[in-house]
Formats: sequence, structure tokens, C-alpha cells
Amino acid sequence: MTIGLKAVHVSYVAHFLAVLGAILVLVWTIGFRGGLAWESSNKNLIFNIHPVLMLIGLIIIGGQAIMSYKMLPLKKPQKKLVHLTLHAIALALGIIGIYTAFKYHNESNIANLYSLHSWLGIGVISLYGIQWLFGLVVFFYPGGTPSIRKEALPYHVLLGTFVYILALGTASLGYLEKLTFLENNGLAKYGSEAFLVNFTAIVTILYGSFVIFTILSQAPPDEEHDQYGYTPIQNE
Amino acid sequence: MTIGLKAVHVSYVAHFLAVLGAILVLVWTIGFRGGLAWESSNKNLIFNIHPVLMLIGLIIIGGQAIMSYKMLPLKKPQKKLVHLTLHAIALALGIIGIYTAFKYHNESNIANLYSLHSWLGIGVISLYGIQWLFGLVVFFYPGGTPSIRKEALPYHVLLGTFVYILALGTASLGYLEKLTFLENNGLAKYGSEAFLVNFTAIVTILYGSFVIFTILSQAPPDEEHDQYGYTPIQNE
Ligand code: HEM
Ligand code: HEM
Repeated sequence: MTIGLKAVHVSYVAHFLAVLGAILVLVWTIGFRGGLAWESSNKNLIFNIHPVLMLIGLIIIGGQAIMSYKMLPLKKPQKKLVHLTLHAIALALGIIGIYTAFKYHNESNIANLYSLHSWLGIGVISLYGIQWLFGLVVFFYPGGTPSIRKEALPYHVLLGTFVYILALGTASLGYLEKLTFLENNGLAKYGSEAFLVNFTAIVTILYGSFVIFTILSQAPPDEEHDQYGYTPIQNE
Repeated sequence: MTIGLKAVHVSYVAHFLAVLGAILVLVWTIGFRGGLAWESSNKNLIFNIHPVLMLIGLIIIGGQAIMSYKMLPLKKPQKKLVHLTLHAIALALGIIGIYTAFKYHNESNIANLYSLHSWLGIGVISLYGIQWLFGLVVFFYPGGTPSIRKEALPYHVLLGTFVYILALGTASLGYLEKLTFLENNGLAKYGSEAFLVNFTAIVTILYGSFVIFTILSQAPPDEEHDQYGYTPIQNE
């Protein structure tokens, strides 16, 4: 399932959507919801960190990590380092982001882990961590034999794509859930904040779609790579 | 992004999840939510038709349509007919299902099209219809030239997969939204109905995942096909 477009061009659209999404989530949480705080008597400010870190960390930086093989004008060992470092940052910010949701719940005496969003969220972050560790061991250090790498690669790409799409779905559920809570407490269903949150969700989904389209597009022809943009057999 | 598993085997898991999902959504809407009705003074019974038709119609039958090329022991012209007929049924049930959501809203004086779920839902059903028509014209009747078919095929697979994943996300948002409404009206967050709805959502997502895995798995080797399970160049 590959398409004829050039990956670098597709990634430009993704970058534009990434900047837009980051601005929208900050306008929402800071401009409409009172700002971000790690400690506060207004517990909502603690919650606000959650969507910011999940979007900018897990989704946006994670998406950049995914695209790195297909868009960067670097040699393969450097791209590998960028790939695994960006994923580590995405994972770390994702873990902190989930921690703030629990912190908010605990300090406000709200139950934990009752929603589809939270269940899938735990699944996403666990699979993301497993996928990262598995990738590190097989492709980086200590690294599998060439035949192990070759066999593992399609599953690495498949599981990675699966987890990323699941993360997009989980984020969409989060926006809808939060907005539904706010609307139940009187926020206008057609007001500007409701539209802002829904547009942020749509920009998130579009960004993720262009990240996936980048995986399916053509890597630059002047570098050595296979269809995934890297050569697992070469053991450098 | 293809994997070494046999498509037929992967599709067995999907079939099991399809039956399970269909049972769960019927147990929920009939056993817990009072049943299904086209006309009723209890407007909730009208709403109940919506998740049943969206899951069994658009998601389950649509998924069977997607898998048909990879799992059926038939010749290509027959598989093509199964594929387009099942998609037509899925689309029709999806349209009726969306109609019942509007019918419920209108008869209960609830606003239309305010939620992320409804926005994405309109996007999904529109793209599904466009994709179906486009596929019919290019691959069935009148049918493009061999070179047009060959060029169009990867985009047909890509857009089809995209729309299907978007439908899965939209259905997940629907479950979460409905359950959140019920919980705001007093339903227990850890009660059996809440778990039932969340499990139905998870079975829906798993079913869809196995449908996608079937696309990425190996078609039976004894038939003529390309990597997508059919030969677009042959003009039968
Ligand atoms: C992929 C990204 C995301 C993941 C993995 C994730 C994960 C989680 C988890 C595990 C919880 C449970 C915390 C607890 O039970 O104490 C949670 C809560 C929550 N999250 Fe997210 N989240 C993500 C993105 C978002 C976004 C973008 C929003 C948008 C506002 C959001 C809104 C919420 C809300 C409202 C809650 C509290 C209600 C509940 O537990 O479902 N989340 N999240
Ligand atoms: C891919 C499948 C689905 C699609 C395309 C879809 C589409 C839609 C659309 C277009 C509406 C708007 C109706 C209006 O504004 O009057 C709607 C409403 C609704 N749907 Fe779905 N739906 C799907 C699956 C589900 C499922 C499985 C549930 C689970 C219960 C669900 C729950 C709801 C709810 C609660 C509403 C009313 C609130 C709202 O407008 O968001 N939907 N759906």
C-alpha cells in the first residue's frame, strides 16, 4: 500500500498542521481554560497540562519521530538516532501527561480509569513503551542479526502504525469527553470554545493522517533504503 | 507494509469478533436500553437503532466487504461483485442509521451536528459514498482502461482504509459520548452497563484492526492476484 507522492512534500503538510494544532491546544487551555499549573487550588489548571502534553508530546513529536526516516536529508545512522530519541521524548511527555490526568483526578476526588478514553490511553502508552524497547533491542543495542532485523521490520512498522492510529483515536475521545463535560455544565454547544475544541481535534486527526501518508510515500531516491526508508540488513 | 500471516486465518479472528460485537450491541440496546423502535413515544428506542445499524451495517458488513478479496475461495469477477454489493449494503444501512440519529434528535428537540462524533460521522458517510461510486466507475462499470485501473488501485486501497479507520474512530466516539450522557444522568461509572458499552467499543476496535490486518496479510497463493488480492490490469 504505497503511493507515488514524495514523502518530503507530504511531511510539509504535516508540519503545518503540527504548528496549527499546537497553537490551538495552547489557545484553548491558556486562553479559554485559565492556563497550566502543576500545583494549584484550581485543579482544572492541573488537568490542562494533560491535553497539551498528549498532543504536543505523544502525537506531534511522536509523529515527527515516525516521519524522520522519510524526510530528513541525513545518513541512516543519524536518522536512526533521531527516530529513537524523538520517540523517547514523546513517550516521556506522554507518561507525564497521563500522570497529570491522574493527579487532577486524585486531587479532585474523581474516580480513575472508568472511561473508554482512559482504558485505551493505558493501552496506548503501554504498547508505545513496549514498541520502543523492542525497537531499541532489535535495531539499535545490542541489535539483532541481519535476518532477525529483516524479519522484525514489517512487524515494527505495523505495530508502530497501529499504536499511532490508536493514539489518534484516544486523543479524539479525550477532546470529545472533555467538551461533553463542559457542555453538560452549561458551555454553549455552538459557541466559539466548542468549535475551537472540535477544530483542534480535527487538526489532530489530519496531522496524524499526513504522518501515516508520509510512511506510505516515496523516500528520496538518492539515498540507500528499502520501502520503509531504511536498510535493516546493513549492520552499521 | 505487508505481513507474512495468511489472510484467511486472520479473517477468522475478525469473524469471531464480528459475531461478538453484534451480540454485545443487541444486548445493550435491547436488554439494557429498552429495545429498538422506528416510531415510539419513548424516543430513546428510536436512538437505539443508530448504534445497531452503524455497528452491524457500516462497520461489520463494511469490514466483510473489505476482507472479501482476501478470504473468499472464488474467482475474481465473483469476488468483485461480493465486494461492491456488501459495500452497498453497508453504505445503505449506514445512511439509515444516521437518519435515525437525526430522527431521534428532531423528535426530542435536541440540536443536530454539534459534536465531533457527528462531524466526523458526516465526513465518513460522505467519503464512503464517494469511494463506492469512484470504485464502481473505475473498476466495474463502465470501468477505466487497464492503465487507469492500475494507477487508481493504490489510491482506492488507501482511501478505503482511511475511511474505514475513520469509521472505527467515529463509532468509538459514539459509544463514549452516549455512555457519558448516561453517566451524567446517574448511570454508575463502574456498573455492568458501563462495562458492557466499553467492551462493545473495544470489540469494535479489535474487529476493525483484524479487518485491516487481513488487508495486509497474504492472499491464497493458488489464485491470480497482485498484492491487494486482485489484478486490476486484467479487463474481465
Ligand atoms: C493519545 C493521547 C492521550 C492519552 C494516551 C490519554 C490518556 C489518558 C488516561 C490514561 C487518562 C486516565 C486518568 C485517570 O483515570 O485518572 C486520561 C484522562 C483524561 N483525558 Fe486523556 N489522554 C490523551 C489525550 C487527551 C486529550 C487530547 C484530551 C483532550 C482534552 C484528553 C482528555 C482527558 C480527560 C477529560 C480525562 C479525564 C476523564 C477520563 O478519565 O476519561 N486526553 N487520559
Ligand atoms: C461509524 C459509525 C457512526 C457514524 C458514521 C455515526 C454518525 C452520526 C451522526 C452523523 C450523528 C449526528 C446526528 C444529528 O446531529 O442529529 C450521530 C449522532 C449520535 N451518534 Fe453516531 N455514528 C456512528 C456510530 C455510533 C455508535 C456506535 C454510537 C454508540 C452509541 C453512536 C452514538 C451517537 C450519539 C449518542 C449521537 C447523538 C449525539 C451527537 O450528535 O453526537 N454513534 N452519529
